[in-house]
Amino acid sequence: MGIKEDMKEMATRARTASRKLAHLDSGSKNRALQATARALLAEAERIRAENEKDLAAARSAGISGAMLDRLTLSDQAIKAMADGLNEIVALPDPVGEVTKMWLRPNGLRVGRMRIPLGVIGIIYESRPNVTIDAAALCLKSGNAVILRGGSEAINSNRVLGEIMTECARAENVPDYAVQVVPTTDRAAVDALLEQEEYIDVIIPRGGEELIRKVVEKSRIPVLKHYKGVCHVFVDADANPKKAREICLNAKAQRPGVCNAMETMLVHAAIAQDFLALIAPAFAKLGVELRGCPASREIVPGMKAATEEDWYAEYLDKILAVRVVENVDEAIAHIQKYGSDHTEAVVTENYSVAGKFIREVNSSSVMVNASTRFSDGFQYGLGAEIGISTTRLHAYGPMGLEELTTTKFIVYGDGQIRE
Amino acid sequence: MGIKEDMKEMATRARTASRKLAHLDSGSKNRALQATARALLAEAERIRAENEKDLAAARSAGISGAMLDRLTLSDQAIKAMADGLNEIVALPDPVGEVTKMWLRPNGLRVGRMRIPLGVIGIIYESRPNVTIDAAALCLKSGNAVILRGGSEAINSNRVLGEIMTECARAENVPDYAVQVVPTTDRAAVDALLEQEEYIDVIIPRGGEELIRKVVEKSRIPVLKHYKGVCHVFVDADANPKKAREICLNAKAQRPGVCNAMETMLVHAAIAQDFLALIAPAFAKLGVELRGCPASREIVPGMKAATEEDWYAEYLDKILAVRVVENVDEAIAHIQKYGSDHTEAVVTENYSVAGKFIREVNSSSVMVNASTRFSDGFQYGLGAEIGISTTRLHAYGPMGLEELTTTKFIVYGDGQIRE
Repeated sequence: MGIKEDMKEMATRARTASRKLAHLDSGSKNRALQATARALLAEAERIRAENEKDLAAARSAGISGAMLDRLTLSDQAIKAMADGLNEIVALPDPVGEVTKMWLRPNGLRVGRMRIPLGVIGIIYESRPNVTIDAAALCLKSGNAVILRGGSEAINSNRVLGEIMTECARAENVPDYAVQVVPTTDRAAVDALLEQEEYIDVIIPRGGEELIRKVVEKSRIPVLKHYKGVCHVFVDADANPKKAREICLNAKAQRPGVCNAMETMLVHAAIAQDFLALIAPAFAKLGVELRGCPASREIVPGMKAATEEDWYAEYLDKILAVRVVENVDEAIAHIQKYGSDHTEAVVTENYSVAGKFIREVNSSSVMVNASTRFSDGFQYGLGAEIGISTTRLHAYGPMGLEELTTTKFIVYGDGQIRE
Repeated sequence: MGIKEDMKEMATRARTASRKLAHLDSGSKNRALQATARALLAEAERIRAENEKDLAAARSAGISGAMLDRLTLSDQAIKAMADGLNEIVALPDPVGEVTKMWLRPNGLRVGRMRIPLGVIGIIYESRPNVTIDAAALCLKSGNAVILRGGSEAINSNRVLGEIMTECARAENVPDYAVQVVPTTDRAAVDALLEQEEYIDVIIPRGGEELIRKVVEKSRIPVLKHYKGVCHVFVDADANPKKAREICLNAKAQRPGVCNAMETMLVHAAIAQDFLALIAPAFAKLGVELRGCPASREIVPGMKAATEEDWYAEYLDKILAVRVVENVDEAIAHIQKYGSDHTEAVVTENYSVAGKFIREVNSSSVMVNASTRFSDGFQYGLGAEIGISTTRLHAYGPMGLEELTTTKFIVYGDGQIRE
């Protein structure tokens, strides 16, 4: 069989599994996840042996540093996967929840009941722990899943998928509920993205390049964000101490993630004082500032920002800085250059806070808090399968609920249409 | 300028308009709709003159009967559009609603606020009243809209768009919030479907062929259903009188619509009595039955159903009939042949009703009611922009709420991430 037929078979098997999985009781799903957590710890040696194959290949390909770290399944990383599974067990099962129910004048009771999306495809890069994490979220929400990780982690992903499948089978989870694409052939991804009849949604996790490729080729809806060009607007009525802490945290607490601040907008009325306060602190943290002419007049030696800087997702210790006349100019800047990810205003002014919350339609909009909180766990969703900046279906961090949809349920007593 | 550039310009103008429209107050939006309702009545003559051009072209192209009726904007049809606008005025504005708000342990208040989707493209066939109806729903929900109707209604659609635009402009609605594609050039649709940067969602309304074309060419997410192959399962524990009324209503009250029953499944234990009861009633209504071998043994002269009949959306006075052994066989039939639109069970049995509601994951699932109720107005949504059988974003009838998404809003007091 060719790769196209292989992928079609995986997808049809997933579809069949999804029908049973959709109404599997929570107990069975939770027991399968708990058993997987135990098995990961018990079979740590088997996992490390497979992971070592990937690491050896990576080393001989000259990969090192952060990428090799991300690929490594240390005992600590395995323990973290097991802990993650038990956290998902503790979350309420979204399936079957009736979110609303109302009575119609003719006596019909109409409601909406949560059901799984069906079959989910996950396409991701090097971290093999995504295999367990994403599969567990899909299983808990009653979705069959097809996982396609990076070729550099193929042996790790395969063994993790095997362990989960073994544990699931013992707990009434239908066969093929969790499938890892067993080949590193690139044609497999393309073939997967054509299975629109059997796969309901694709969630890519990785860099912008990976996501653009997936979107371009997919005939299946994709839940994704390309990048996070997050802004903090320091208003004239900001508390300077809060503003300083929030901006330093938003930029430097973890610069390499999508919810880190990339551009700081400062109200002209406080720019002189605030920039003089924060520039040395950024310098101390090793953050390079790139500013508009007005901010460069205030901070001597600041590098000039180009038009590209306003669009940039640095994912690094670099920050674009711009002085704006008022909240309207800040909002206009965000609408023009932003990525619909996360923006924050720092202000003590009631009207400015209200305007910012109302008029900025990014997927997360904050007052007096660090953009770094834009995250499924921090929001209390209990989990995160990804972040969407597409307005369809889900917008912002996505937890278990976002892996479901609702069907209408109608209880009648013989009603017919006049 | 070529058609591609024209469509890109329409789309970018819509995007710009959508930014202002997103936080336009409900009062302005309602006044614009009310003014349009008045203008439709006041300018009935102008509308009929343009409509007459379309009707003349249609007649000389040999179009007649139902299609010509659908194209005609009689005084009654114009009055109905005006009434429809006033009904939309009476609906609550979904924008700005905070659907949830919760407190995190660190004091952050996190919530979800409804916002418009942005820019919506509607692609539809002959009925020109869709122009007003769809534009009004989009405007009320704060979305800019681009309308592309059938070429046979171009003059009617254009004048309706003009009237609405004139009324909207007088009420602070931003320019280009409502745009009718002014050309019948087919290339315009293709060009529109490529504006994924500026258009957030496409809603096609029309026959299966139109929808398949749109899905195939669109790089923008599409909310749609291809067809409605709706089932009624008459259980062994059905009340025969209720079952008879429901089945007759589901099939024959209006056979040409997507929520009409196309296949009737009957439990073997009551097939003899029930089919003997209902077959003469269907015959009297002029409904042709096509059955499985078991049902043909009960009803002499019943035509044989082929495999294609189980997949068929007749939209006509034809009904496929199958005898099944139990509810599981009924559910399996629905999963195999159904279209995820609407299914009903008729039963007095608590367990059968519960199983059917739980395990059938079509977008509408009913107990003891006619499938004809699957409709935004009947469900009390107040309006309907379409029905989705795609599980992403919305599933089932879509009202104003389904033209929105939610952003996360976060209120802090200086919180930073540890």
